[in-house]
Amino acid sequence: MGESLKETLYLLLEDPEGRNPRAGMVRIFLMALILLNIAALILETVREVSLVFEFWLKAFEWLSVGIFTVEYLARLWVGGPGRAQGLAGRFRYALTPLMLVDLLAILPVYLPLLLPTDLIFLRALRLMRLMRVLKLGRYSEAIQIFCRVVVQKKEQLVVACIAVLILLMIASSLMFYLESEAQPEAFSSIPQSMWWAIVTMTTVGYGDVYPVTGMGRLLASVIALLGIAMFAVPAGILSAGFVEHGDAGKTGDTVCPHCGKPLGPGRTD
Amino acid sequence: MGESLKETLYLLLEDPEGRNPRAGMVRIFLMALILLNIAALILETVREVSLVFEFWLKAFEWLSVGIFTVEYLARLWVGGPGRAQGLAGRFRYALTPLMLVDLLAILPVYLPLLLPTDLIFLRALRLMRLMRVLKLGRYSEAIQIFCRVVVQKKEQLVVACIAVLILLMIASSLMFYLESEAQPEAFSSIPQSMWWAIVTMTTVGYGDVYPVTGMGRLLASVIALLGIAMFAVPAGILSAGFVEHGDAGKTGDTVCPHCGKPLGPGRTD
Amino acid sequence: MGESLKETLYLLLEDPEGRNPRAGMVRIFLMALILLNIAALILETVREVSLVFEFWLKAFEWLSVGIFTVEYLARLWVGGPGRAQGLAGRFRYALTPLMLVDLLAILPVYLPLLLPTDLIFLRALRLMRLMRVLKLGRYSEAIQIFCRVVVQKKEQLVVACIAVLILLMIASSLMFYLESEAQPEAFSSIPQSMWWAIVTMTTVGYGDVYPVTGMGRLLASVIALLGIAMFAVPAGILSAGFVEHGDAGKTGDTVCPHCGKPLGPGRTD
Amino acid sequence: MGESLKETLYLLLEDPEGRNPRAGMVRIFLMALILLNIAALILETVREVSLVFEFWLKAFEWLSVGIFTVEYLARLWVGGPGRAQGLAGRFRYALTPLMLVDLLAILPVYLPLLLPTDLIFLRALRLMRLMRVLKLGRYSEAIQIFCRVVVQKKEQLVVACIAVLILLMIASSLMFYLESEAQPEAFSSIPQSMWWAIVTMTTVGYGDVYPVTGMGRLLASVIALLGIAMFAVPAGILSAGFVEHGDAGKTGDTVCPHCGKPLGPGRTD
Repeated sequence: MGESLKETLYLLLEDPEGRNPRAGMVRIFLMALILLNIAALILETVREVSLVFEFWLKAFEWLSVGIFTVEYLARLWVGGPGRAQGLAGRFRYALTPLMLVDLLAILPVYLPLLLPTDLIFLRALRLMRLMRVLKLGRYSEAIQIFCRVVVQKKEQLVVACIAVLILLMIASSLMFYLESEAQPEAFSSIPQSMWWAIVTMTTVGYGDVYPVTGMGRLLASVIALLGIAMFAVPAGILSAGFVEHGDAGKTGDTVCPHCGKPLGPGRTD
Repeated sequence: MGESLKETLYLLLEDPEGRNPRAGMVRIFLMALILLNIAALILETVREVSLVFEFWLKAFEWLSVGIFTVEYLARLWVGGPGRAQGLAGRFRYALTPLMLVDLLAILPVYLPLLLPTDLIFLRALRLMRLMRVLKLGRYSEAIQIFCRVVVQKKEQLVVACIAVLILLMIASSLMFYLESEAQPEAFSSIPQSMWWAIVTMTTVGYGDVYPVTGMGRLLASVIALLGIAMFAVPAGILSAGFVEHGDAGKTGDTVCPHCGKPLGPGRTD
Repeated sequence: MGESLKETLYLLLEDPEGRNPRAGMVRIFLMALILLNIAALILETVREVSLVFEFWLKAFEWLSVGIFTVEYLARLWVGGPGRAQGLAGRFRYALTPLMLVDLLAILPVYLPLLLPTDLIFLRALRLMRLMRVLKLGRYSEAIQIFCRVVVQKKEQLVVACIAVLILLMIASSLMFYLESEAQPEAFSSIPQSMWWAIVTMTTVGYGDVYPVTGMGRLLASVIALLGIAMFAVPAGILSAGFVEHGDAGKTGDTVCPHCGKPLGPGRTD
Repeated sequence: MGESLKETLYLLLEDPEGRNPRAGMVRIFLMALILLNIAALILETVREVSLVFEFWLKAFEWLSVGIFTVEYLARLWVGGPGRAQGLAGRFRYALTPLMLVDLLAILPVYLPLLLPTDLIFLRALRLMRLMRVLKLGRYSEAIQIFCRVVVQKKEQLVVACIAVLILLMIASSLMFYLESEAQPEAFSSIPQSMWWAIVTMTTVGYGDVYPVTGMGRLLASVIALLGIAMFAVPAGILSAGFVEHGDAGKTGDTVCPHCGKPLGPGRTD
C-alpha cells in the first residue's frame, strides 16, 4: 500500500506527463498558498493589521508551514522526478536547488525549537521566511526564463559588471579628492563617496548627496555622461536576452528568429 | 428611406473602402472634437480658467456629449463594420471594446440623471469623462500599433514583470528589516518600504525616502545595481517590439529585416 | 573678373569634388569660428568674465558676425552647389534650410538697427544668436547622421511619442483627482500635476513634487512601473537607428549588416 | 646565467603559449596584489581605519610598490612579448599603453623623492596611486572586451556624444534665459545652468536645481521628453556592442548570429 501511495504522490507532485488534472490542481493550490503566505508575512509588518489580526496571521502561518512540511517530506519520500532511492539518493536529491529552497521555507520556523536563540537570530529567521517567494520558482515559468536568460548572457553580464565596478571606484575616488574639503560630512571617505557614485550613476539621484564646488560639478557631469551609458549596459544585455529568448521560443529554436530559415547545426543559442 | 440613411451613415462612419472623402472629414471632425473636449476637461481644473470661462466650458461639454451620443446611437443603428442586425446582434456589437469605450465616454454625463448620487460618486464620474481619450484609439494608428506591439511581446513582458515584482518584494522586505529601526517613520512596514523600493528601482529617486545607515546604504547599492537592470527590461522589450514592427512595416512583411531573404509563409509577426 | 572670383569662391565654399585643400582650410576656419563664437556667447553670461572682458567679447562678436555676413553673401552670390542663377533662383536657394540657418545666425545682430525694438525683443534676439550652433550642421557629419536616423525612424518615433502623451494625460489626470486634496498647492490642476507626471515618468525625480497619500503612492507606483517602460521606448528606437546606421555604413548599405550576404533589391533601409 | 634568468622571466611574465601553470600563479598573485592594494588605498581614507592600522597600511603600500617596481623592471628587461632588444627597443616598449600604466602605478611614490613638492602636488600624486586599477587591464578580459566594444562602436558613439553636447548647449542656454530672473542664484549663467541640464537629461535629478516658473517648467518638460531619448543613445549603442560581441564569441565568429549562415571572409567584427 505504501508503494501505491508513493506512486499516487509521484503522479500528483511530479506530474511526469504534464497533463494530470489533479496534479494541476495541487500545483495551483500550492502556488496560491505561497502567494497568500507571502501576503500574510508582508501584512504582518503593518502595525494596524498585526494588532487586529494577530491570531489569524499566526494560525495561517502555522497551517501553511504544516502543509509546506508535508509537501517537503512527501517530495523527499517520492524522490523527485528521478525517483531517487535509499538514504544516499534522497540526500543527494535534498541538495538540489529546488529542494534546498523548499527546506529554507520551513526551517526558520523549526530552528528556534531546536537551538537556543537570541533576538537578533530570531529577527534573521523571521526575515528568512520571506525567502518562501523562491518556492514560486518551481511553478513560475517567468523565473525559469529569467534564470535561463541570465545564464545565457552571463559572460557579457560579468564583463559589464566588472567595468561598472572599476568605473565606480575611479569615480568615487576622484570625487572624494575634489569634494571632501567642501563637504567633509558627505564625502568623508572613498567608501562614503561611493554612495554618491552609485546614487548618481544609476541615475537614482535622491538628492541627499551632490557636489557643490565648481570642479566637483564638472567632474560629476563628466562621470554622469560617461558612467550612465556604462551602467545601462547590463539592462541592455538582459533586454536583448529576453527578446532573443522570446523570438527563439516562438519559432521553436530551429529556425532563424528573423527570416524563418532553418538554422545551421553550429547554432546553439 | 430609413435604409438609405442607414447606408449613408454606414459609408460615413465605417468607410469600408477607406477612401470616401466625406468619411475622412467626419473622422477628422470627431478626432478634433475629442481633442478639444479633453483640452476643455483639463483646462476646467485650472481655477483661473474655470472661473472666467465656466459657462463656455459647460456649453462645450454638453455640445460634445450630444454629438458623441448621436455618434454612438448611429454606430449602434448601423451595426458596425459587420452590419449587425437585430437586438441580439447589436447587443453583441455594443460589447466590443471600441463600442464600450464610446459608451464610457458619454455614460458619466447621463448617470447622475438616472441614479441617486453622492459627492464621491460624482467625483469619480467627472474623472471618468477623461477616459474619452480612449476614443482616439479608433482613429489613432499610434495606439493601434502600440497595442499590437504589447500583444506581440506579451509573454516576455509578463515574464519581466513577474521578475520585477518578486525583486520588488525581496528588496522592500530586506530594506524594512535593515532600516526600520533607524527610520521608523519612512520604513514602518514592508508595504511602506515598497514605496522606497519602487522609487529607487525605477531610478526616479524623489529623495523623500532613502537609507541612512551603513548597512542600509550597502543593501540599497546592491539592489540598485541589480534591480535597475531588471526594471529596464520591459522598456527594452517594448523598444525591440517597436523597432521590429517598424522594420517589418517598411519591407512589407515579406522579407527578413536582417538578411533580406523572403519570409516563409508560417511567419506571422 | 567677377566670374573668376565667383568660380574661386564656388570651389572654396562648395568644394564639389571634396578634396580641395584650401576649401578644407576654409571649412576648418569657419567651424573654429562658430565654436569660438558660441564659447564667447556662453562666457558672456558669466558676470565675472563679462565685466573684465566686455570689450574683447563685443569685438569678437562683431568680427565673427562680419565674417558670417561675408560668408552668407558669398554663398548667395555663388548660388550654392546647384549654382543658382538670377534673383528668383537665389531667392529659392536662400529658403533652403542650411541658408536659413546661416541667415538666422546674423539677422539678430542687424534687426535692432532696422526695427524699433523694446527690451523683451532684444532679449529674444540675444537668445537667437545661440542658434548659431546650428551652423555646425553644414560641417558636422554627426548632426547629419542624427537627422538621418530621426527621419528614418520617424514613424516609430511618432507612434511612441503619441503613446507617451496619452499616458501622460491619463497619469496626470488620475493623480490630480487623488492628490489634489492632500496637496492643493502641488497638484492644484491637471496642467500642474503634469509637471509631476513628466518628472516622474522620465525618472528625473527632482523631489519637488511627490505623492504623500497612500492611494497617491499606489497610483504613482503603478504609473512608474508602466509608464517608464513606455517613456524609454523613443530612446530605444533612436539607439536601434544609430546601431543600424553604423552597421549599414560599415558594410556599404548593400550587404546584410549581420552576415555580409548581399541584400535583396526590395530592401531600402 | 643572465640569459637563462631572462628566459625564465619571459616565460613567467609573458606566458607565450598561455598554459604555463607557474605563469598562471604569477598572474593570479599580481592580480590579488593589485586588488588588495586598491582596497588598502580606499580604506586608508576612512579615518577610523587609518588611525588604527596606519603602520600596516603604509607597510603594505611600500611592499606592493616594491613588487610592482620589480615587476616593471623585469618586464622592461625581458622586453615584452616581442622581446625588444637594446635601449631604443626597450624605450619604444616602455611607451606602449600597458607599460605606461605600469609606470604610472609606481611613479607617484618615487616622484616626491626626486622633485621638490608642495602639498597640492602631493595630493595629486596620492590620487594618482588609485590609477593602479588600470593595471588590472593586463589581466582582466572584461576590460579588454569593454575596450574592444568601445573601439568597434566609436563612430556611432562620437556621433551620439556630439549630438548630446549640442543638445546640452541649447537646453542650458534656453533655460538660462527663462529662469535666470526667477532664480538668479541657480541659473546665474549658462555654464551654471548646464549643471541643471546635465542633472536633468541624465535623469539623475538630485533636486538641488529645478525650474519654478511656468515657462521654465514647460521648457524643462519638452527638453526632458526630447533630450532623455538622446542621452540614452550612447548606452543603447554600448549595449548593442556587448550583445553583438557576446553572440559573435559564442558562434565562434564563423556563422551569422541571426541567420546561421557562414560569415564571409571580409567580416572582421
